[in-house]
Amino acid sequence: MENDVVFVGKKPIMAYVLAILTHLNSGHDAVFIKARGSMISKAVDISQVVKRKFSKDLKISNIEIGTEEIKTEENKHRDVSFISVEMKR
Amino acid sequence: MENDVVFVGKKPIMAYVLAILTHLNSGHDAVFIKARGSMISKAVDISQVVKRKFSKDLKISNIEIGTEEIKTEENKHRDVSFISVEMKR
Repeated sequence: MENDVVFVGKKPIMAYVLAILTHLNSGHDAVFIKARGSMISKAVDISQVVKRKFSKDLKISNIEIGTEEIKTEENKHRDVSFISVEMKR
Repeated sequence: MENDVVFVGKKPIMAYVLAILTHLNSGHDAVFIKARGSMISKAVDISQVVKRKFSKDLKISNIEIGTEEIKTEENKHRDVSFISVEMKR
C-alpha cells in the first residue's frame, strides 16, 4: 500500500493525473491520493479528472478524512487536516 | 435531509462550526457539510474542528465526492468538484 500513494503538493493537477495513470498502467490495481490542508481540494479535483476524463472503469472505493500532527520549520507541532481517496479498478 | 445541509462559503470556519452545533442542538441528529472547489479543504477543516473540539460523540458517517455543473456569471457551464461530509450522533 505504501507504494500506492500519490501525495498531492504544489505541482499542476496534470502532473498528479499522469503519475496516477502511470502507476495504474504498470500493474497496480489501486491508488491512494493523499493531501493535507489547502491541497485537499486539489486532491478531489485530481480524482475527478482521472475518473471522468481518463479511466472510466476506475471507482472511488474509499475516502478518509482526519487530522495529522505535523512539525513546522520552527520545530513546533501543528494539527492539519488530510484526505485520502482510494481509487480501484 | 435538505434542511440538514450546511453549505461552506467564504465566512470564517467558526461561523460554520457554530451553525453546525446550533443545528445539532435543536433536535437534529445529522448534518451534511457541503462545499465546492477551493472550499472543499475548508469543509474538511470544519468537520475536524466540530469532531475534535466540540462534539466528540459525533462521527463522520459518510463522505461523498463528485463533480457538479455550475452556471457562471457569463451564463456558461463549468464543472466543479464537490464534497459532502455527513456527520451523525
